[in-house]
Amino acid sequence: MTTPDWIAAEHRESRLRIWQMAADDTVLAQTECIAEGGEDLSRTLSHALPGLDPGTPVVVSGAAKLPFAAVPCTPPKLAQAQRDGDLHRLPGIAQERPVDVLHGEETRVAGFLSLNPRFDGVICLPGAQSRWVHVSAGEIVSFRSALTGTLFDLLGAPEALGVDAPAAFDEDALLQAADQAMGRPANFAGELAVIRAERHLSGLGDTLAASRAMGLLVGMELAAAKPYWLGQSVAIVAEGNAAQPYRLALEAQAVPVVVADGARMALEGLKAARKG
Amino acid sequence: MTTPDWIAAEHRESRLRIWQMAADDTVLAQTECIAEGGEDLSRTLSHALPGLDPGTPVVVSGAAKLPFAAVPCTPPKLAQAQRDGDLHRLPGIAQERPVDVLHGEETRVAGFLSLNPRFDGVICLPGAQSRWVHVSAGEIVSFRSALTGTLFDLLGAPEALGVDAPAAFDEDALLQAADQAMGRPANFAGELAVIRAERHLSGLGDTLAASRAMGLLVGMELAAAKPYWLGQSVAIVAEGNAAQPYRLALEAQAVPVVVADGARMALEGLKAARKG
Repeated sequence: MTTPDWIAAEHRESRLRIWQMAADDTVLAQTECIAEGGEDLSRTLSHALPGLDPGTPVVVSGAAKLPFAAVPCTPPKLAQAQRDGDLHRLPGIAQERPVDVLHGEETRVAGFLSLNPRFDGVICLPGAQSRWVHVSAGEIVSFRSALTGTLFDLLGAPEALGVDAPAAFDEDALLQAADQAMGRPANFAGELAVIRAERHLSGLGDTLAASRAMGLLVGMELAAAKPYWLGQSVAIVAEGNAAQPYRLALEAQAVPVVVADGARMALEGLKAARKG
Repeated sequence: MTTPDWIAAEHRESRLRIWQMAADDTVLAQTECIAEGGEDLSRTLSHALPGLDPGTPVVVSGAAKLPFAAVPCTPPKLAQAQRDGDLHRLPGIAQERPVDVLHGEETRVAGFLSLNPRFDGVICLPGAQSRWVHVSAGEIVSFRSALTGTLFDLLGAPEALGVDAPAAFDEDALLQAADQAMGRPANFAGELAVIRAERHLSGLGDTLAASRAMGLLVGMELAAAKPYWLGQSVAIVAEGNAAQPYRLALEAQAVPVVVADGARMALEGLKAARKG
């Protein structure tokens, strides 16, 4: 294999995604491994890429220490990276009011902007923490997070709903629950109890239960994030089917949505950061 | 020890609480053991009480199979119990709209009513699933559940807030968050993200984080359950400090509250059910 000229990497939700890059920014190889926050990132990298030449620069997002950049700002470039041997950690972005951080998502945003340089609007990034990022004239102006994905995963526990994410959500069940939650968000914990009771009393199935739970979460999030999406052009940057619930619920609100792949945006963002 | 005349038992949240009772309903001994829902209750009982005379009747709440009684109804008595050898399982109570079940709480309600026979109003029972039970003229008229306690426990996970329930919640932090959630319940997942960010950025401590999370949950629940408590006399039936967040948040809404011990109400309810 050709020796990589540089390494692009993204640390996100306890995983490290690694791209071995040629000088012309074509991808030579791609790897993914588990990397908890506490571990030594250099060690994880040398385990994942044992033959890597010392001195090969590694540009990584989602793995910086404080301090972060502050909004409003353009997504961080290589010059702002925290240097640690061959490792260049792109800083996250912090916001004072409300207190909030982007930690890797800013690079996905940069990737989307590098492919869509005239985009003005809102980028929604579903995940363990979903992010709504307001972008204008190439700058990240403000953002807000919600613990939606984490809550959904936790609700899978047997003492809650005892369901996993289905291959695809039931669209009707999801949309009905989203609509309900947008109208009566306070009833979230109550509706979860109803789902649990229906599982017990009438054998409500896994896919419907999971779709309703996700609908409640996304509806609640949309109600809170309304100033972000109302009358805006919205891009969803997500992997796999993580975009589906947000796309469905936003389209039900007559919001035009484009969807872009999260991993691809991460890579484009790392390439853009390196070019400076 | 005197041989028990009968056994009172409550199955609740994976635990079995057992009282050995004399003929005059004094408590001879009390035991508690772990009992998951799937296990054979007779076997758990004979392990917990190895010397028990065969033929000693056991009256247990929270351990019935379907069908349940239907609202409106008085709390189930011994005559309605599901008979299984010496075991008398008091049925739970089901509600059609919204679909919901009481499964043991109805006996705690019966206990409260046996000590307060003229009570008309709402009984709030915090727990893994909290219940709001509307009682009038000795009958359970309607009720609603919320998965509040379960959500709080799940939020303790490291991928969420990474906190356990403190010995006592911080009253100011809890009340401020409850007020916030009553006003803007949709922002629940967003406020959780803010708590997480404050832990990361400014080292927000465990007690404050847990108190804010509980405040958000209780505030959201109070907003949804408003038709239950507004202008009502409210009794909270709970164990340990589980009553504290509800009492604080209700009193902040100028609702007069009495608090009764959950385990004691369970026992009184079992005694009342046995008397018929």
